[in-house]
Amino acid sequence: MHAGDEVRILLVLHYDGRGFHGWQVQPDLRTVQGEIETVVERITGARRTVLGSGRTDAGVHATGQVATVSFPARWSASRARKALNALLPRDVWVEEAREVPMAFHPRYDAVARTYRYRVGTAALSASPFHRPYCWALGEALEEGLLKRGAALLPGTRSFRSFAKAGQPQRGEMCTVQEAAWTPWGDLGWAFTIRANRYLHHMVRYLVGTMVDVGRGRRALDELVALLEDPDGEATTSPPAPPEGLYLERVRYPSPSFVPSPPHA
Amino acid sequence: MHAGDEVRILLVLHYDGRGFHGWQVQPDLRTVQGEIETVVERITGARRTVLGSGRTDAGVHATGQVATVSFPARWSASRARKALNALLPRDVWVEEAREVPMAFHPRYDAVARTYRYRVGTAALSASPFHRPYCWALGEALEEGLLKRGAALLPGTRSFRSFAKAGQPQRGEMCTVQEAAWTPWGDLGWAFTIRANRYLHHMVRYLVGTMVDVGRGRRALDELVALLEDPDGEATTSPPAPPEGLYLERVRYPSPSFVPSPPHA
Repeated sequence: MHAGDEVRILLVLHYDGRGFHGWQVQPDLRTVQGEIETVVERITGARRTVLGSGRTDAGVHATGQVATVSFPARWSASRARKALNALLPRDVWVEEAREVPMAFHPRYDAVARTYRYRVGTAALSASPFHRPYCWALGEALEEGLLKRGAALLPGTRSFRSFAKAGQPQRGEMCTVQEAAWTPWGDLGWAFTIRANRYLHHMVRYLVGTMVDVGRGRRALDELVALLEDPDGEATTSPPAPPEGLYLERVRYPSPSFVPSPPHA
Repeated sequence: MHAGDEVRILLVLHYDGRGFHGWQVQPDLRTVQGEIETVVERITGARRTVLGSGRTDAGVHATGQVATVSFPARWSASRARKALNALLPRDVWVEEAREVPMAFHPRYDAVARTYRYRVGTAALSASPFHRPYCWALGEALEEGLLKRGAALLPGTRSFRSFAKAGQPQRGEMCTVQEAAWTPWGDLGWAFTIRANRYLHHMVRYLVGTMVDVGRGRRALDELVALLEDPDGEATTSPPAPPEGLYLERVRYPSPSFVPSPPHA
């Protein structure tokens, strides 16, 4: 498991996205990767790169982001977890730490990522205990239309219609393995999607458009057109706001890579 | 319902206690009462006192604090609610607003207040999505001992043992109407207590002591002694931290005063 005197440790991370300018290190901005690298440097005495399974945007939460970092071989995963949790700020937390082969790469080895998006339809979703963690819409959504929208998504196709315009993308084909709307308690609806990859802002554009269908502002046919003809005239609705979005789980091919069941 | 050209409006409030130095206005400190009075002044053009059902300490949350404030008679309760929610900071929210008689007093008319305290026994309670809203203990508690502790509390007696030392108290007798520990999902335990009144820090001293009994650090007999003999030698455990505590509901004698069922 060691390369020279190093050990590679996989971390399963929770973070409250509100206080971060996203995952990736940026000069002079507070990011999740940056906060973890700072603490790793404090406890090991050397700057070490923390690799993530993918970037999350500013304001987006995680209950199952996966990252790796190398530690000196005298460190065990459980000691690393304790030291990180003792020093990390309160809005990022290591749920689990595990030793993985040095060759493991959290991004290239991932086969699927699951995101969850919460939409609050009840007035109570605007409470300070819920509003930071959902899109506090406060309007009813028609269950049948939400579910018919989600049922259109599984399969392999171009999702270019649902990508931030003008963003360079490495390929536009994505395979959606699962997509469903389920009740979010008495507060609203949660959309869960699992795909091999995503284009930039894709989940938020999908949710923004499906919510407009669900509240009767657009026809379901417009969603069909966006999916079937990325070169057509149709445009998406604005992206749903980041505070409703969670990176919930990252899957790897070998069972030994699969993190514990996620908790939301 | 009006005295002269004023109307009295009752507000049911949620707030995330983290950002506040408690309920009550204090010079140069951010308080819930202060934030609401500032917004009321902005929308009515005059400084007006917001009366609360009682103070909550720094860091304590509410999902059912009750307050009143007078508005010019041209204001309806629903217009006041909308205007307040549009301008209040995101960590305080008006769930409900209702016109009440000018003579109504949210503190003196209250017959009971319900508090809830969440203790996280699962490791997951340390996640950034739970830790600000519970005591993230991370240790198992014995259900039988918690429940035997709570069963000792109902009735009328001096709770002086469970009050912050040296604080002047207007009387030390309290009537606990209900006290129970129930599961908090998979995350831990929630303690609910309803009483006509409380001494300063009383719920947090009770929880701190019951938790020490539940994790085997103290004998249940010590809790019995503290309750039966306020002049004895026994001392409480340290108070449980404020972030686990919620003011959940305030009850009034007339059904017309009773706010909607609380939500946590």
